[in-house]
Amino acid sequence: MPEYMDVHRNMTGITAEDLKAAHEADLAIQGEEGVEFKKAWADPESGVIYCLSEAPSAEAVQRIHERAGHRADEVHAVPLSV
Amino acid sequence: MPEYMDVHRNMTGITAEDLKAAHEADLAIQGEEGVEFKKAWADPESGVIYCLSEAPSAEAVQRIHERAGHRADEVHAVPLSV
Repeated sequence: MPEYMDVHRNMTGITAEDLKAAHEADLAIQGEEGVEFKKAWADPESGVIYCLSEAPSAEAVQRIHERAGHRADEVHAVPLSV
Repeated sequence: MPEYMDVHRNMTGITAEDLKAAHEADLAIQGEEGVEFKKAWADPESGVIYCLSEAPSAEAVQRIHERAGHRADEVHAVPLSV
């Protein structure tokens, strides 16, 4: 299954609890689109969040994020990794 | 050691071999700044690359990337992850 990296901006001040809650909201419904969110990293200072997933498409990733209440600003397939 | 995510843009068309060579150029000198590059993901279509590292500072990450010939466009501390 292809991997995707998506980016959320303007999340300045996000806390560990906020990140955990947002991630769990994704996990709760991800199976409905065949998505598996694997990891998320956040920088509270610049307000940027990166989420790594495996998914059938970028649109599937975005649909889960939207339904969980946090639309991504960018979703990129990352077919290459090292 | 803190984690960092850095981003390189305008790398449209990057190949698996390019990514591997760039990553190995970082690995060859990372110890000189106490940096450990852990993973990199690339999207040849949009030309964006994400690199995850552990490092003493964002500046240390950038110094390694610069010396390896590929300055990052952004380097963010990612103190939160889930």
